[in-house]
Amino acid sequence: MSEKNYKLKIEYDGTRYYGWEHQPDRPTIQGKIERVLGFMLMKREDIEREGSDEPAQIPEVIGAGRTDAGVHARGMVASVRLDTPLDCDAIRDYCNRYLPDDIAIREVSVASDRFHARYNAVGKTYQYTAFYGPVHPVFNRKYYTVLEHDVDVSAMQQAADVLKGEHDFKSFCGNSHMKKSTVRMVDRIDVRRSKGYIYFTLHGTGFLQNMVRIIVGTLLLVGEGKLKVSDVEDILEARDRKSAGPTAPAKGLTLISVDY
Amino acid sequence: MSEKNYKLKIEYDGTRYYGWEHQPDRPTIQGKIERVLGFMLMKREDIEREGSDEPAQIPEVIGAGRTDAGVHARGMVASVRLDTPLDCDAIRDYCNRYLPDDIAIREVSVASDRFHARYNAVGKTYQYTAFYGPVHPVFNRKYYTVLEHDVDVSAMQQAADVLKGEHDFKSFCGNSHMKKSTVRMVDRIDVRRSKGYIYFTLHGTGFLQNMVRIIVGTLLLVGEGKLKVSDVEDILEARDRKSAGPTAPAKGLTLISVDY
Repeated sequence: MSEKNYKLKIEYDGTRYYGWEHQPDRPTIQGKIERVLGFMLMKREDIEREGSDEPAQIPEVIGAGRTDAGVHARGMVASVRLDTPLDCDAIRDYCNRYLPDDIAIREVSVASDRFHARYNAVGKTYQYTAFYGPVHPVFNRKYYTVLEHDVDVSAMQQAADVLKGEHDFKSFCGNSHMKKSTVRMVDRIDVRRSKGYIYFTLHGTGFLQNMVRIIVGTLLLVGEGKLKVSDVEDILEARDRKSAGPTAPAKGLTLISVDY
Repeated sequence: MSEKNYKLKIEYDGTRYYGWEHQPDRPTIQGKIERVLGFMLMKREDIEREGSDEPAQIPEVIGAGRTDAGVHARGMVASVRLDTPLDCDAIRDYCNRYLPDDIAIREVSVASDRFHARYNAVGKTYQYTAFYGPVHPVFNRKYYTVLEHDVDVSAMQQAADVLKGEHDFKSFCGNSHMKKSTVRMVDRIDVRRSKGYIYFTLHGTGFLQNMVRIIVGTLLLVGEGKLKVSDVEDILEARDRKSAGPTAPAKGLTLISVDY
């Protein structure tokens, strides 16, 4: 038996979690998965050792990115090194048997030894879902944000087009202490309406902290007529978080997929 | 101003409710809607009357049927008599503003004075959703039942065909003290599989207590090979609840629509 590197594809409803990244004494997606994998790796001597019901070792599960508290994922990718006799499907089944029902491991595959879910990610797709209308759909209510006002989708698409391309997105960065480059390439921002829902689909090489939610919060101000399309150019040039719109609520955001 | 009779179309996630019908000190769908409508009907003198924060009068909301604890609805219909200056959309909007987000009034319309949501219902469509597969979808997890074993859909459809038509469904009645007729007409029971989900769609003139869930529980035994198609004929003839399969879990069941 020897350690192998695995790639996990993960789906989760982020509603009751403090985000992806593990934190002491708070439920997080990474924390839940690492703990279950820790139990999976337990050996006979660990189980016989009395006085502790925690795994002897916890493997580090590296996510493609850190989703915020309340953000969901359909296709989060993570890498983890495991020394286990179980095959990929058995690892997946073990995890799904013990994980809470708001987290599911969709796929487990053996990755090359150098695969790193964060460093090797070359693109990400996010979807943000908002709803405007007199009757709020009940069944998916944890996955969209309710708008108080109707919005102009074509104005939002024009503003979105201003943001497409490679820019310094400092105005759209939620981390005011960010010291590294805030230049990012976003090649897709599509805004469309269907049956009361407004969907924002974004694809880029990488996103800054809260960047998708700040872009959506700013586009919604354009949609409500509180900002003009030309204002979005000024916001981009300002390189100042205070110039942009509010951070849209986490519950509307879902990480759809990660490219490698 | 005078009293009018209204028809409501209602959607709800039944997960946290003790069913449709109101019960003292327990959350129910009917109870929530009646209380909000009670507040809507409050008059100036009710608000000025001190010592109570409850509505002075609670209107009776008559549902097309009583869904069990944990059962959902996309198109429950109810009737209610209200003396209010508000128009239909304003009634709907008032309700949706104050109802919890797992209940929504989809439509309000003025009905004929004699319309009664229960007595005038001539048909109902239910859908039951089960899932079998290695990875349980996360986002709709409150709305399907997980199967432990794979099932033979065509055997279930054959057994379903035995149950179609007008029969005495006493074996499929959850109320052992039922004194009225247990004859019902079920003209549609379709079983289909799509992407790991197994959907049971039933339409009939009316259903006995737990009847859809007992039919599904029995069909699943056929699907698992624990009952033969011919056994279902015997179960129907037995007119004895103990001969049929278990009551399938509530969470998989949704009332889709009611015909008038």
